[in-house]
Amino acid sequence: MLTEIVLRERLQQMIDNKTKPLGALGRLEEIAVQAGLIQNTLTPEIKHPHIVVFAADHGIAATGSVNPYPQAVTAQMVLNFLAGGAAINVFCRQHRLGLSVVDAGVNFDFDGTAGGGSSPNLISHKIGYGTRNYLEGSAMTAGELGKALEAGRSVVRDLAAKGCDCIGFGEMGIGNTSSASLIMSYVTGIPVEECAGRGTGASDEQLEKKREVLRQTFRLHLPAIAANPDAMTILEHVGGFEIAMMTGAFLQAAEARMVILVDGFIATSALLLARLIRENVQAFCIFSHTSGESGHARMLEYLDAEPLLDLRMRLGEGTGAAMAYPLVKSALAFLREMASFDTAGVSKAE
Amino acid sequence: MLTEIVLRERLQQMIDNKTKPLGALGRLEEIAVQAGLIQNTLTPEIKHPHIVVFAADHGIAATGSVNPYPQAVTAQMVLNFLAGGAAINVFCRQHRLGLSVVDAGVNFDFDGTAGGGSSPNLISHKIGYGTRNYLEGSAMTAGELGKALEAGRSVVRDLAAKGCDCIGFGEMGIGNTSSASLIMSYVTGIPVEECAGRGTGASDEQLEKKREVLRQTFRLHLPAIAANPDAMTILEHVGGFEIAMMTGAFLQAAEARMVILVDGFIATSALLLARLIRENVQAFCIFSHTSGESGHARMLEYLDAEPLLDLRMRLGEGTGAAMAYPLVKSALAFLREMASFDTAGVSKAE
Repeated sequence: MLTEIVLRERLQQMIDNKTKPLGALGRLEEIAVQAGLIQNTLTPEIKHPHIVVFAADHGIAATGSVNPYPQAVTAQMVLNFLAGGAAINVFCRQHRLGLSVVDAGVNFDFDGTAGGGSSPNLISHKIGYGTRNYLEGSAMTAGELGKALEAGRSVVRDLAAKGCDCIGFGEMGIGNTSSASLIMSYVTGIPVEECAGRGTGASDEQLEKKREVLRQTFRLHLPAIAANPDAMTILEHVGGFEIAMMTGAFLQAAEARMVILVDGFIATSALLLARLIRENVQAFCIFSHTSGESGHARMLEYLDAEPLLDLRMRLGEGTGAAMAYPLVKSALAFLREMASFDTAGVSKAE
Repeated sequence: MLTEIVLRERLQQMIDNKTKPLGALGRLEEIAVQAGLIQNTLTPEIKHPHIVVFAADHGIAATGSVNPYPQAVTAQMVLNFLAGGAAINVFCRQHRLGLSVVDAGVNFDFDGTAGGGSSPNLISHKIGYGTRNYLEGSAMTAGELGKALEAGRSVVRDLAAKGCDCIGFGEMGIGNTSSASLIMSYVTGIPVEECAGRGTGASDEQLEKKREVLRQTFRLHLPAIAANPDAMTILEHVGGFEIAMMTGAFLQAAEARMVILVDGFIATSALLLARLIRENVQAFCIFSHTSGESGHARMLEYLDAEPLLDLRMRLGEGTGAAMAYPLVKSALAFLREMASFDTAGVSKAE
């Protein structure tokens, strides 16, 4: 096993000897080095990439105070995933990414519902029929949280056992931008009204109402979180089941040394929490895109992260991760396949 | 044939009925509309995408005053393309893009050199062994320019006959950022020293020298170009054979209603000229990326163009176009494959 410093230098030498001006592949060169470090090799490769979409409902959403779409859409979209009709299905087919959908706690019984054929199957880790409304107390119990974290880990553990070496996490949960905004605010210290954006498309009026509800929620849980400012306390008070599972999934993916494609606003909020538990998780992360959800750019800034794409997408489901995947593949491909100055007989700069 | 206004509205309706919040796929939605308009259909698709790399030498490069790499690198890189070892080969293989390499006027005899197997073949349209040094007169004659424009058109015409429906143009030519900087300055009115960047990696000192040479060249040709400020005059005086061919190629691709992927600094300089001849060319263009070459961002601003990627790449060869291709495919795929609210039984926003 090469030490990181030696490996980094050798990767850089390989890159600098490719038939191109120094640094001319920009961000792709950085991704190639990062992937080499993650896999501890000069020849990183991705053979089994996978997207996992975690779906769950949020107690607050039933009140209609933070979301323009009805809560039922969470379950409807899960059925859409299973039928292969959502955006993430399209992009996973395009790039041959595996896709799993996890019922982390949707307010619907999927018994007897299954994908099949080219559609993903549903993995059931239902913690409950949605979280409790955090305006009236904690979103989940410590026991529920523990189960959710472990479920997220187990999904990734199972994929690792099947050879998965690159993973992206997506989510579906009406109301979950509110939960993510609260998490962001508690972790980064940025006022919650600056963290909250339009989510799935709130109007000006709806956005103002959402911000007021979040200010109230923030104040309500602040004493408990200030007393124990850790990931667990934040998740218990204002988390979602899907966000808690993603947090566990990030931790497990880093332990399995996978290349992790970080999606948008909700996924990055889970990463903020995973980092509180194990800071080193970020070394395994490639930031796929800047979401059109307004708080995401500031999250990325907080993480000092430079995302690959900025297409004003704000859909979740892991769609940003899927879109960035071919760019990551390009980085590995040029490292492996491009000729060097010596082998191609090309002159270097004078 | 639908009128543009009706087609645009129907495409937008289709997109708004997909199972996602309004506008949530951001730039991809715009690309889907544009591709539908280009192909005059509600179901745009790309079946035969292709990259053409035009290579040529520049008289100025032989003086070593504008380029850190020796002129011989142009020919060496063409051989590298034919052997399949360059970055553009890697990315074309990854995305199954066809690849052609055109000798537009390289200072080398490729007779008897051929690709073969999975490598691209060389198309010979050699106008000469490089342009003349524009510090000593015009870069090319009107006759050479006419041949070059027609050669660019004929390459695209041949591809169109084989079904090509999406095309990107790349280039290789030591010294060609200088030619592109001059073109940019004449077309946009931005001072040439602000148009000129480091090219393949000039040092501070080399860059200062390059800028001084370009200031001198700019002044030398200004009277003739001011008298006839058209694409032909600019190309004759300070163009390159590869840039002239790309200009013809852009015009032909637009006439063939191809989806055109615009690469970086040099390719966009050719587009600036093609627009002077037929402004409507830009309607067929998708801007693939912002090059790390410093003048490119301002070129894009001048064109009011919003590129898909910004990865600090500055390699040319069509690599930016190739990297953007899967994003364009995603745009067409979601339009064709995603379920609508009705068919999927998903509720709309309240």
